[in-house]
Parts: sequence; structure tokens; C-alpha cells
Amino acid sequence: MEETRNGDQPFVEDGIRGGAKKAGLPPGALVFVGKPADFEPHVEVITYTPEKAEQHEVTTVEEAAVLSKTPGVAWVTLFGIHKAELVGEMGQQFNIHSLLLEDILDTTQRPTSEVFDDMLFFSLKMLKWNDKRRGIAFEQVSFVLGQGHVLLFQDRPGDIFDGLRRRILTGKGNLRTRQGDFLVYRMIDSVVDQYFVAAEKIAHRIEKLESEIMKEPQEAHMTRLLKIKKQLLQMRRTIIPLRDNVGLLERSQHPLIQQETLPYMRDVRDHIKEVIEMLDMYRETVTGLIDLHMSRTSNKMNEVMKVLTVVTSIFIPLSFFTGVYGMNFDNMPELHEKYGYYMLWVVMIVTTSGMLLFFRRKKWL
Amino acid sequence: MEETRNGDQPFVEDGIRGGAKKAGLPPGALVFVGKPADFEPHVEVITYTPEKAEQHEVTTVEEAAVLSKTPGVAWVTLFGIHKAELVGEMGQQFNIHSLLLEDILDTTQRPTSEVFDDMLFFSLKMLKWNDKRRGIAFEQVSFVLGQGHVLLFQDRPGDIFDGLRRRILTGKGNLRTRQGDFLVYRMIDSVVDQYFVAAEKIAHRIEKLESEIMKEPQEAHMTRLLKIKKQLLQMRRTIIPLRDNVGLLERSQHPLIQQETLPYMRDVRDHIKEVIEMLDMYRETVTGLIDLHMSRTSNKMNEVMKVLTVVTSIFIPLSFFTGVYGMNFDNMPELHEKYGYYMLWVVMIVTTSGMLLFFRRKKWL
Amino acid sequence: MEETRNGDQPFVEDGIRGGAKKAGLPPGALVFVGKPADFEPHVEVITYTPEKAEQHEVTTVEEAAVLSKTPGVAWVTLFGIHKAELVGEMGQQFNIHSLLLEDILDTTQRPTSEVFDDMLFFSLKMLKWNDKRRGIAFEQVSFVLGQGHVLLFQDRPGDIFDGLRRRILTGKGNLRTRQGDFLVYRMIDSVVDQYFVAAEKIAHRIEKLESEIMKEPQEAHMTRLLKIKKQLLQMRRTIIPLRDNVGLLERSQHPLIQQETLPYMRDVRDHIKEVIEMLDMYRETVTGLIDLHMSRTSNKMNEVMKVLTVVTSIFIPLSFFTGVYGMNFDNMPELHEKYGYYMLWVVMIVTTSGMLLFFRRKKWL
Amino acid sequence: MEETRNGDQPFVEDGIRGGAKKAGLPPGALVFVGKPADFEPHVEVITYTPEKAEQHEVTTVEEAAVLSKTPGVAWVTLFGIHKAELVGEMGQQFNIHSLLLEDILDTTQRPTSEVFDDMLFFSLKMLKWNDKRRGIAFEQVSFVLGQGHVLLFQDRPGDIFDGLRRRILTGKGNLRTRQGDFLVYRMIDSVVDQYFVAAEKIAHRIEKLESEIMKEPQEAHMTRLLKIKKQLLQMRRTIIPLRDNVGLLERSQHPLIQQETLPYMRDVRDHIKEVIEMLDMYRETVTGLIDLHMSRTSNKMNEVMKVLTVVTSIFIPLSFFTGVYGMNFDNMPELHEKYGYYMLWVVMIVTTSGMLLFFRRKKWL
Amino acid sequence: MEETRNGDQPFVEDGIRGGAKKAGLPPGALVFVGKPADFEPHVEVITYTPEKAEQHEVTTVEEAAVLSKTPGVAWVTLFGIHKAELVGEMGQQFNIHSLLLEDILDTTQRPTSEVFDDMLFFSLKMLKWNDKRRGIAFEQVSFVLGQGHVLLFQDRPGDIFDGLRRRILTGKGNLRTRQGDFLVYRMIDSVVDQYFVAAEKIAHRIEKLESEIMKEPQEAHMTRLLKIKKQLLQMRRTIIPLRDNVGLLERSQHPLIQQETLPYMRDVRDHIKEVIEMLDMYRETVTGLIDLHMSRTSNKMNEVMKVLTVVTSIFIPLSFFTGVYGMNFDNMPELHEKYGYYMLWVVMIVTTSGMLLFFRRKKWL
Repeated sequence: MEETRNGDQPFVEDGIRGGAKKAGLPPGALVFVGKPADFEPHVEVITYTPEKAEQHEVTTVEEAAVLSKTPGVAWVTLFGIHKAELVGEMGQQFNIHSLLLEDILDTTQRPTSEVFDDMLFFSLKMLKWNDKRRGIAFEQVSFVLGQGHVLLFQDRPGDIFDGLRRRILTGKGNLRTRQGDFLVYRMIDSVVDQYFVAAEKIAHRIEKLESEIMKEPQEAHMTRLLKIKKQLLQMRRTIIPLRDNVGLLERSQHPLIQQETLPYMRDVRDHIKEVIEMLDMYRETVTGLIDLHMSRTSNKMNEVMKVLTVVTSIFIPLSFFTGVYGMNFDNMPELHEKYGYYMLWVVMIVTTSGMLLFFRRKKWL
Repeated sequence: MEETRNGDQPFVEDGIRGGAKKAGLPPGALVFVGKPADFEPHVEVITYTPEKAEQHEVTTVEEAAVLSKTPGVAWVTLFGIHKAELVGEMGQQFNIHSLLLEDILDTTQRPTSEVFDDMLFFSLKMLKWNDKRRGIAFEQVSFVLGQGHVLLFQDRPGDIFDGLRRRILTGKGNLRTRQGDFLVYRMIDSVVDQYFVAAEKIAHRIEKLESEIMKEPQEAHMTRLLKIKKQLLQMRRTIIPLRDNVGLLERSQHPLIQQETLPYMRDVRDHIKEVIEMLDMYRETVTGLIDLHMSRTSNKMNEVMKVLTVVTSIFIPLSFFTGVYGMNFDNMPELHEKYGYYMLWVVMIVTTSGMLLFFRRKKWL
Repeated sequence: MEETRNGDQPFVEDGIRGGAKKAGLPPGALVFVGKPADFEPHVEVITYTPEKAEQHEVTTVEEAAVLSKTPGVAWVTLFGIHKAELVGEMGQQFNIHSLLLEDILDTTQRPTSEVFDDMLFFSLKMLKWNDKRRGIAFEQVSFVLGQGHVLLFQDRPGDIFDGLRRRILTGKGNLRTRQGDFLVYRMIDSVVDQYFVAAEKIAHRIEKLESEIMKEPQEAHMTRLLKIKKQLLQMRRTIIPLRDNVGLLERSQHPLIQQETLPYMRDVRDHIKEVIEMLDMYRETVTGLIDLHMSRTSNKMNEVMKVLTVVTSIFIPLSFFTGVYGMNFDNMPELHEKYGYYMLWVVMIVTTSGMLLFFRRKKWL
Repeated sequence: MEETRNGDQPFVEDGIRGGAKKAGLPPGALVFVGKPADFEPHVEVITYTPEKAEQHEVTTVEEAAVLSKTPGVAWVTLFGIHKAELVGEMGQQFNIHSLLLEDILDTTQRPTSEVFDDMLFFSLKMLKWNDKRRGIAFEQVSFVLGQGHVLLFQDRPGDIFDGLRRRILTGKGNLRTRQGDFLVYRMIDSVVDQYFVAAEKIAHRIEKLESEIMKEPQEAHMTRLLKIKKQLLQMRRTIIPLRDNVGLLERSQHPLIQQETLPYMRDVRDHIKEVIEMLDMYRETVTGLIDLHMSRTSNKMNEVMKVLTVVTSIFIPLSFFTGVYGMNFDNMPELHEKYGYYMLWVVMIVTTSGMLLFFRRKKWL
Repeated sequence: MEETRNGDQPFVEDGIRGGAKKAGLPPGALVFVGKPADFEPHVEVITYTPEKAEQHEVTTVEEAAVLSKTPGVAWVTLFGIHKAELVGEMGQQFNIHSLLLEDILDTTQRPTSEVFDDMLFFSLKMLKWNDKRRGIAFEQVSFVLGQGHVLLFQDRPGDIFDGLRRRILTGKGNLRTRQGDFLVYRMIDSVVDQYFVAAEKIAHRIEKLESEIMKEPQEAHMTRLLKIKKQLLQMRRTIIPLRDNVGLLERSQHPLIQQETLPYMRDVRDHIKEVIEMLDMYRETVTGLIDLHMSRTSNKMNEVMKVLTVVTSIFIPLSFFTGVYGMNFDNMPELHEKYGYYMLWVVMIVTTSGMLLFFRRKKWL
């Protein structure tokens, strides 16, 4: 799992390392760029026709290539791409351009798609909410749609496409009755569904932050707002190319994309648009909360100032009065009046009451 | 009534739940996404020709399908879409693509339109001002325009299209003399008219907020401004796709859209543009009010500071004077002057007057 | 005069009422939307050929229609559109689409244009500076250019086109030698000229506000700036569609628009662009003035704070000194020094001088 | 020199006066709009062929027209356009459309270009830095490129094209070997070169302002920043249409523009783009400086507050102590302690030290 | 090395000097614009075929031209372009348009590309992070791709293309098996790789700044943030034209660009897009940090104010009490109470505790 871009890190993302790590290498050199996983990569093949479906655990890529020649659709998944040689073998067996292999291996790249005469390439990012780190984790998935086979390159085994596998094997739904392009659509659709889940998680965080700021704005809220804003930007940046790529696929009129699949493609594109609009709206909301935070902070300052002003304005004049009658002049007649002290109290109480009225009228109390 | 997005809730909308709730289900699965209503859904059919019009209360969808085969236009309304099977039946009887049925059932989706050879699909949002919650409530409506029939899927019975029904039944206006496309236009037009009403409601709230801020800015105003801004954004997000969809319809040259209806479509599109421009202007206004609020808050702080400064600056020096003559030095000649006390009063009054003049010149008093 | 959107009102404009007032009515229903005037509407016809021109005061629309059949151009003006029936009659006599009649009657609508085979429709807003209310007043004007006639629908009699009338009747200029399209161009040009005048008025207000803010920022300035900003937005919103409509006319290659008129259309479009650019620049200027206002306000706060700090910082330590020697300890040797009192004065003067120097170095004095 | 829009004026520009001054006049009326110059306009003709070049001082426009009929290119310059009749004569002799003559005379207009079958029109703004007023002065220049002649309308004699004149007369460079289109290119190029100079002047002012704000932010800086921002906007507004017009010329495939001149046109367009980008970057820089100014102002307020707080927090408690022992209770044992006074000093010094430590830890000292 | 635009300089860049320095010169005049280097320029030629590769150190440009006529690809590099004559000679020998030579010599220009029938021109900026100055240094590189040769104009010798040279000479990779277009692609790719490195450096600076601001916001941070923002803008401005130019090359269908190279071009364009997106995201982050800085500054002010208010509010009332009993009225019964002094202490302690509780409840302590 490529978890480097999550919520508890500083603002600057790691995605950049990909390009930088490879700087200097010739293009076409197959190097894995990302955080290597600690399990053994393996290949899995599911072949299916409308009638039946079979799951094959294969040990070499050649076996997979042989299976893909059988009638029907072969869905070949490579779990774990940190072993670059395996990806290279896939490339050889299924005749994939070396640049595509590079794209598959570079998990830090933006989603891309490439149209060849006999092949469609598609890479995108899965978004997973990481509860521990309270951030979004990105994981790259790449598809190759060829004649009679769909290749899936997944960084590590995960449950996201398990539902599809079960559906194919049990024959539920219309997956088996269609070609590989429909499988690709279903995989994209599953990923987009996850975007909604991730967006909802972020929405909940914003909601929580909002009520906290309403109660008591703290400095940490500001940082969290900026962090969320950044996550929204990252998600947007990840999803926008996907929208364009799906649109490209839709308009490509490629023989591998069947006419009946087009409405589904349009549908998934609509969903992607919706996620993007939601992200944009959340970003506006976050901007609004930053304004609210600043407004609340400055209101609190106002409140502090009012207390200071009220206390000072009441007691400083009173202290002046007591100062006057604390003086040691020989000739101060008031000091020798019998009720002078009590009259001073009257004066002070009257003054204070006037002040309090003034402040009440100003709504400072 | 889909009232989840209203003014008294926190900033983050619920619309997202739709996508998230369905995540994991295969596309084409008919599931209602929204807040279920508590009444029994039912179907109503109005058939009309230029000569006559009839209202039929039907009990099954099949009856409606039969009625729609009669000459003239059949306007079939399904009130209440929370019963997914009923929508499914409609789909079967009227031959609607399963993706459209999904769009009909998902009340949280953005407005969409779809053009088929023999069918036009159109979904949009009605906006209703909810006086109790002081917010905008959204309700989804979907149309299907087929040869000789118009299907309307409405979340729950409402009065918005009742005027149209009455017009058709009584034969007032030119509705009966035209085809289904004109009916669709009239329904869109009715919804757009409601947008103006909703916009006006928001305008009144802004107006009221403005005069309140002018009188006395409070923290609650800030929150309300942000809430209104968010509502405007939501409305915009809801209306923008409608504009594009109507434009699409206009340019589609679909056989179901008659030439004479086109100017009306252009007209309704102009109205939609106008609403959008109004919303944008209101948003600018709200931004201006946020500026005004901040400016007024900081002006109030200024005022507080001035009072503090004036009081402190006048009494602190006076207290110093009294402090001086409260000292117990053996040798302080002033204390023994006969009129020392009175001269000190003169000095203090002169000092205070100077201060007051200074503050008056600075316009702090 | 449609004066509802002017400078002394609250921020929210009234234009919205148009749409809201009509909500519920069927399209095509002829209802005047705006503030009704209190004079009797009347029709005026000017017929002209290159050789001669005549002004006719007609009493019925039929007379006008008859006159428009004569050779040359007939310029038919309807003063006062608040009598919807009269507009309806015009529509019948000159064969105008009912939607256009609606557009003519709805004075709150955005500028629009419509191209028919034998007719060009054009509506726009005249801007008038209202000195009393210090705001911009909008008035709608609509043109219909047909074969051999130009129809002008004006809300109430005004002087803006009087110059054109005089020119035609006296034969000055080239107006009489050209067709109706040139007359339409001249009318648009006259309206655009007024935009410059209105923009200049606003510019003067901005200029005045600027020098006032430079002298002494007041809270009222903020409100006025926001008001001006809103007026600029309204003007922009009114003028932008006009630019597009003129462009449309230019590119329409309509037989009613003669080749020789095209450079003039381009010219008027350039002027419109210039107004829009000016408005945008003024808006930027207003934004700058809001910044300046905030900066000046916070500078004034700084100044207040400095006075407070200087006064407090000087007198509080001095008061401490006097406090010390106001104590009643039995054993306080300084009190019994012969020059103790004078030495304290020396100490206090030195301290104060040090403080003053410190503040001077900090540029707080 | 049209010096109305310069740096020492208030924010609102004068350019508007042009449109307003003419409002009411018919189009085609030749009226000079601008600040009239106080010298006698005159015409100058330079004729050149690859072999030779000659400078003619002519007295009438007819002479110039006759000279322009000779083989080779005739470069006719009219210095001073405030005499509208002279421009009118030029129009007659060289057959220029009356709208173009208007454009030439209206020095407040935005740059424009017009393509006719046998003529290319081009107007642009020269920018001159006015050192005395510390602002940009705009001067309009118009070209007409016809078959065998280039007409130049310059507001007043200036040195900007003198280099070109000398080059033609002395035969330096390739100017004489080419047609009029190359001369036009060279003139545009000279003007664009001046844009760089003007941009550099503004850059120096920004640089100076920046270091001043870094040293000591003053209120005047804010005003100057806003002024510079406005100048940048004005320049941008002046240069953007030029870029579009040059692009138009490039793509026009006009017979008067020779194939070999196209790369030069592209080159000059690249330069214009570069100036625009520089202006945009400067504007961003100015925005950044406004932020810096605000940040520095609020930092200074912080500093003031800290001094106030430190002084107050140290001396107010001390004053309280002295107040306690200044009381006149009969029974106050401490007053009669032998070292009571000295112990109080110890307490006060310890308290003060604690305070100072606290403030140091808070980094307020 | 053109190091004039780096991080320790004031905000305004020097790039402008180029245009300004040349202002007045005719186009086509070959003048070096930039900071001259202090080494002798020299030419180097590498010729290669799939079979072998040779490096030639030549002394004159003619030798290079002769070598370029041999079969295979000749890669001619001119190190040091500050000697304008040498560039001129290159132009003559390889038949380059004088405008291109100018572009090559003007190191301050924006990246450009030019397509000729037999030649492709391409100029771009190398970005180098300058650790000493903590800024980005720009260096211009220009390519000319002709039939059988690639010309490289490099400001000064550097290591960036050394890897390519080694690969060609040793025959590693597929460079030797391809034409000059692939070499050009590889050079662009190397430069783009460096962009990632530079972006990463800036990302690190942002990261460091962020944690510093979180710890203790200082005024210097603000300046540094603005500086970084400006660098990002400069980089963006430098990279954006490159993206467009590569896109142009891709779509040009020029015979010198082979079909197989196109996917590589697309790939490099994707990388450029990625860098631009990264820069945009960093800019958003910097904007967020400016907000954070302001928020933290105002929070610190709040903190200062709270200390001031707490201290003042506690001690000013206490001082009032001591003031009261420091008065010298003859008749003040409390003074003669036996435990008056102690009771006052009780009152003062109770008051203070109340205050402290109040402040604690307000969360000011």
C-alpha cells in the first residue's frame, strides 16, 4: 500500500520522489518506484465464458499467457508490482510497450491512458481511507485490455475487486455474458465507488471540525483545515485525469470497446464528475471554515479586550479618587469632614454605576 | 420530500450518502437511494388529444402501458419512487434501459439527460424553500419522453404540476394541441419558475442579514452567511447541469423534439442562465457581506480600544500626581503650602483638558 | 423608468421579482413585468426614404401597420409597454412570435436576441444615472427589425433616441440613405454611448470615495464600496449578453443585415468590449480600495495602541515609585533624607526620558 | 503626449472621457478625442526602394498622395492628429473608411485592427515612462498599410521611430530591401521594445517598495502598491488586444503581408506574450507585497502589545504591594518590623524576576 | 550559468533586462543577452551510427559542418554562447534563420519552438537548484534538429547531458539505433527529470518552513513564503511553454519526427504536466501556509492580550482596595478595627480567587 501521502504528515507530498528517484535513468528502464511491499508477488488467472468460469493459480507468466489464448475472456492479475522483472515478463508475454511497463511500475505517476491498435492501457489510483492515520492512502492500479484478455496490475492483494471475482465465478450478474471491456468498466466503477466512500469520510471530518470550531476555535483546527484542503486537492488532481481518460475511451471508437458498453462508460464518467463537484464543494466549505475560524478568533479577541476595558475603566478612576485622599497635604478640608469618607463612597458608587450603564448600553456587558 | 440538505444542518451535505450507500453493489441493481417516504406509491395516467383529455387512476403499470398505446399523448406519472419494484416494472413495460432506472431511483444524483433513438431521458431537481428549516429542499423529478407518452417519476405527490394537469383536462392553453415534447418543456419551465422563487427567498434572507449586520454584527451572522453561500453553491451545482442538458436537447435534432418547440427550449435555457447569474451575484453579495462583517467587527474593536486608551491615558497620569503627594518624605515643601492641594487640582484639570483636546483632535471622542 | 435597482437600496436586487411574479403562469401569457408607468402608451411612426421623411402620430396599431407597408423604412415606436394588450396588437399586426412579446413585456429579463428568417429581435438595457438616488437605473428597450420596418418598444418616452429622430426628419447624416439595419445599429450605438456616461459617473464616485478614505476611513465607506461593486456587477451582467448578441448579429449573415453595416457592428462591439474592460478595472479598483480601507483601519488601531502603550509605560513605573515612598514602614531611611524627595524626582525624570527615547527609537512617537 | 493616465493621479483613469465626450455625436463624425497638443501638425514622406531613399517635407496631403504613387514604398507620417481636418484629408486622399478615421482620432480607444481587401489598419499604444510623474504615459499610434505605402499617424513628434528613419535613409539593415509590411513589423517591434523598458521601470519601483516595506511599512506604501497594481492592469489591458491583433495579422493571409515577414510577426507576438507574462508576474508580486505589508503591520501591533503587556504586568503587581503598605490600619504588624521595608524589596525583586523569566520564556523580550 | 533569478534577491526578476537591453537594436542583430561566462567557447561533435560512435574535438565550425555530412547522426554541441560570432558561424554553416540565432543568444527569453520544412528549433530552460543561494538558477539550452544532425547550444559546459554522451559512445541503450529526433527527446527528458529534482528541493524548503511556522511564526517566514511562491511562479512560467511546444512537436507530423518517437513525446509531455500540477499544488500549499502564519500571529496576539487582561483585571481592583485604606480621612472606622487589616486580606483573596475562576471558565488560563 502506497501510504506515503496521508493526513498526519507535513503538507508536502511524497509523490515527487518518483520522478526524482528515476532522474538520470534512461526511459524504458524498468525500475519500481514506490514503497516496496514485503510479500511475494504472484499471478492469478480467471478465465470465463458465458457458460463457465475457472480460477487458476499459476506459477509463471508463461502459463498465464497460454491460458489467455483459450476462448472467452482471461482476467490475469499480477499482485505486487515491486518485483520489476515480473512486470517485464508480463510485458514480453503480452507484448506491451516498454513505456507502459514503466507507467505500471511508477506508482507515483498521475493516472494515464494510452490507446494502441490492439491494446488499451489505463492506470488509475484507488483511494483508501486510513483510519489510523486519518488520511487518504493512494494505491495505483493499471489495466491492459487486449483481445481476449484483461491484465490487472495491483500493488498488493486487496478486497476491492473480490466482489467482481466472486460474481464471475458464481455467474451472478451479467459479467460473464460480456467481453473484457465490460470487466474493465466494472473495475473502474468499483474504484469510483470507493471515491465516494473516501469523500464521505472527509465530509465527516469537516462536519466534526465545524462543530468544534463553533464551540471553541483552536489553533490546531487551522492546521487540520489546511490538511483537509490539501487532501481534497490531491484527490482532485488524482481524479481529474481519470475523468478525461474515461472520456477519451468513450470517444475512441476502439474495436475493443463494444457499443453496448458506452452508456456504462458515460454513467461512470457522470459519477466521476459528481465526485469532483463534491470535492470542489468541500473545498469551498473548508475555505468558509477558515473564514469562520478567523472571525471567531477575532471575536474572542474582542471579548478579551472588552473585559480588559471594562475592568480598567471602572477601577482606574476609583483608584484616582482614593489616591487624592491619600495625599498628605496639610490643608485638605475634605479629610476632616465627619462624613467625608462616606461621601466619597457615594461618589465612587455613583461613578461606577454610570460606567456600568455606559458599558451596558454599548453591549459590552 | 428529500429534505436532507437544508439550512439548519452542518455544512456538509448528505447527497454523498447516495454514492456511498450503493458502493459495492453492481450497476443495474435497482435500489432506492434517498429518504423513503411513508405513503403508498401510485400511478396516474392522463391521456389527451387536441379534442379531449381524460384522467385515469390505474392500479397496475400494465394498465398504464395499455393506455399509452391509445392515440394522442399519454402522460404517466408515478408518485413515489421509494418502491424500487414499481420503477422496475415501469422499466419493463416502457422498455427503459436499466441504467436510467438507476438514475431515476438515485435521488442524490446530479441532473442528467440521456438521448436514445426512441427515447429521451431527463432528470432534474425541484427546489423548494422550507420555511421551517429556513433552507432549500431538493426533490428529484425524472422524465422519459417516448413516442406517444411522457413518463414522470416524482418522489412524492406535490402541487407543482397540478396547474399543467388542470390545463390539459380543461383544455385551456395550447398544451393539448401539441405533442409530448411540449409537455416536457412545460414541466421543465415550471421547475425553473420555482428556482426563481427559491432564489428570491434567499435574496430576502441576504437582505435581512445585511441590515442586521449594519446594525450590530454578531457571530451568528458569519455562520449564517457561510450557510447561505453553501446553499447558493448547491443550487448552482444543481442548475448548471440542467442548463447543459437543455442545450443538448435543443441541439440534438431528435425526431421526438418538434421544430416549433425549439424556441421554447431556447427561452427556458435563457431563464436558467438568468437564475445562474442571479445566484452568482448573490454569492458575490454574500462575500461582500463577509467583508463588511469583518470590517465592522474590527471597527468595534477599534472603538473598544479607544475607550480603554482614553480612560487609561487620562487617569493614569492623574493617579501619578496623587501618588507623588501621598509620599511620606520628611521634606516635601509642597505639602505644607496653604493652597498646594488646590493648585494640584488646577494642574490635574489642565492636564485632563489637554488630554481631552488631544483625543478630540484625533477623533477618538 | 424601471428604477428598482438603484444605489440606495439594500444589496439584493429586485430583478428577481420578474421571474417570481410570473411563476405559475403559462408561457406565452402576455403580462407586463416591471413597475407600471402612469401615462397613456402611444404609437409613433416615422417613415423615411432617402428623399424625404415624415412623422405620423397614429392612434391605432393598424394605422402603423398600414404605414409600414409604404416604400422606404418605417420606424414604429411604442412608448409605454405596461399596457400588455397594445404589445399584443403589435404582435398580431407585425406577426411577432408570442415568446418575443413576452420578452418585450418582461422588463426584468437579461438582454436577448433572436434570429428568425424574416425578422431580427433584439432587447437591451439602457443605463441611466439617477443623481437623486446615486445609482444606476435600468430601462429595457426592444427592437424588431423586419423587412421595411423597425419596431421599437420603449418603456416610457425618453430623450435618448430624439437625436436620431431629428437627424432623420432633417435629413442630416447618412441615416436616410440606408436601410433599417443601420437605424438599429445607430440605436444600439446610442445606448452604448450612455454606458460610457454611466461608467464615468461611477468612476467619479470611486474617485471621491478614494480621497475620502485616504483622509479618514469611515465605516460608511465600506458599505458604499460594496454598493458600487454590486452596481458594477449588475452593469457587467447587463452588458455582457449585449456583446454576445451583437457578435451573433455580425456573424448571422442575415439578409436584413447589409454588408456595409458590418464594420459598424464590429465598431459597436469594440465599444462594448471597452466598457466591459472599464467596469472590470473599476471593480479591481474597488477591491483595492477595500484593501486600503482595511489597511487604514488597522493602522489607526495601531496608532491608538501606541498612545495607550506610551502613556501606560511611562506612568505606571512612576506610580510605582510614588507608591514605594507612600508606604508607612517605620524603618524607611530614604524618607528621612533631606533631599530624598528631590532625588526621587531626578530618578523619575531619568526613567521617563529613557522611556521616551526608547519609544522614539521604535518610531512610536 | 496623452499623459492623462499617470501615476500621480487618483485611481480612476481618464480614458473613459473619450467615449463620454463623444456620446451623442453620430458615428463617422471626425472629432479629435484626447488632450490637444500645442504645435502645428505636419506631414512627412520618406520614399524608398532597395536602391535609394529620400525624405520629403510636404505641405499638403495631396503632395504626399502623389509621392506615394511613385515606385517603391512611401512612408507617410502625420505628426499631430489633433487637427481633425488633416486626418480627414488623409482619409480622402488614401481612401480610408470613415470609421478608421474615427479610430485614429480617438486616442482613448483600445488597440484595434481592421482588415480590408486592399488595406490593413492597425492602432496601438506606445508606453512611455514619465519620470516626473512616476507613471506610465500612453500615446496612440495608428498605421495603415496600403499597396506601396505605409501611413503613420502619430499624436506628436517623438524619437521612437527615428532609428528606423535613419536606417532607411542610410540604407543600413535590410529595411529598404523589403516591402511596407516589414516596415510595419519594425514599427510594432519598436513599440514592443518600449514595453519592456516600461515594465523594467515598474519592476524597479516594486523592488524599491519591497525593501522599504521590509525596513518599515508605512501607510503610503499601501497606496503606492495599489497604484502600481492599477498601472499593471492598464498596461495589460493595452497590450492584450495588441497580441490578438498581431495574431490576426499573422493568420490573415493577406496579400499585403509577405510570406517572409510571417516568422517576424510570430517573433513579435512571442515578445508581446512575454511582456504580458511579466506584467502578470509583477501583479502577483504586488499582491504578495500587500500581504507582506499587512503581515508586517500586524506584527508591529504585536510588538506594541507585548511592550504594553510586559510593562503593565511587571509594575501593576508591584504597585499593589506598595499600596498594601501604604494603608493606615492601626494594626499592621509588618510596618513595625525592623527590616520589613527591605524584605518587601526582596519580595518585589523576586516577583519581577519571575515575571521577566516568564516573558523571556514566551519570547516576548 | 544564468544565475540572476535566485532566492536571495529581491522579488523582481532580472529576466526583463534582456528585452530592455536590446531595445533599439534591429531584429536579426546577433547580440548575446545574459550574464557572460569567463571561459573560451568550444565545439564538440559526436557522430554515431548503430554500429559505432566517435567523439571529435573540433576547432572550427566548418569542421563540424563537414563531420555532420557523414552518414549517421552528428551531435554538434556549442559550449558557451556568449561569443555571438561563433553562433553566427553556426548559423551560416547549418543554414539557420537569423531570428532563431537571436533566440539562441537571448538567454532571458521564454522557451520557444519553431517548425521549418527541413529544421526543427527548440529552446528550453534547465533548472538547477543553487544550494548556496537557496534558489533556482535557470540556464537556457537550444536544439536544432536537422537532417542527419542535432545542434545543441549550451550556455556553459555541464554534466546534465554527459550521461547521454557516455551512452552513445559506449553503445548502451537504444540511442545509437535511432535517429536525431530520439536524441532530442532524450535531451528534453533529461531536462524534465531535473525539474522534478528542483521541485523536490522546493518541496523540502516548504516542509521545513511549515514546521518552523508551527513552532514559532516569525516575520522572516512570511518573506520566505513569498519568495518561494515567486520561484514557483517563475518555474511555472518557464515550463508551461515547454508543454505547449512538445505538444506542437507531437502534432506537427514533421518528417524529421519518426512515428516511433511519438509515444515517447507523449510520455515526456505527461511528465511535464505532472511537474506543473506539482508546482500548482505547492503554490496552494504556500498560500495555505500564509494563512496559517497569519492565524498563528493573531493567535499569539490573543495570548498576549489575555495575559495583559488577566494581570490587569486581578491587580487593579486590589490596588483600589489598598488605595481606599491608604486615605487619610479623620473618620474611617475600619482603620481602627483590630483585625481590619486581616479582614481586608481575606476580601482581597476572595476577590482574586473569583477572578481566577472567571478566567479559568473563559479558558484564558
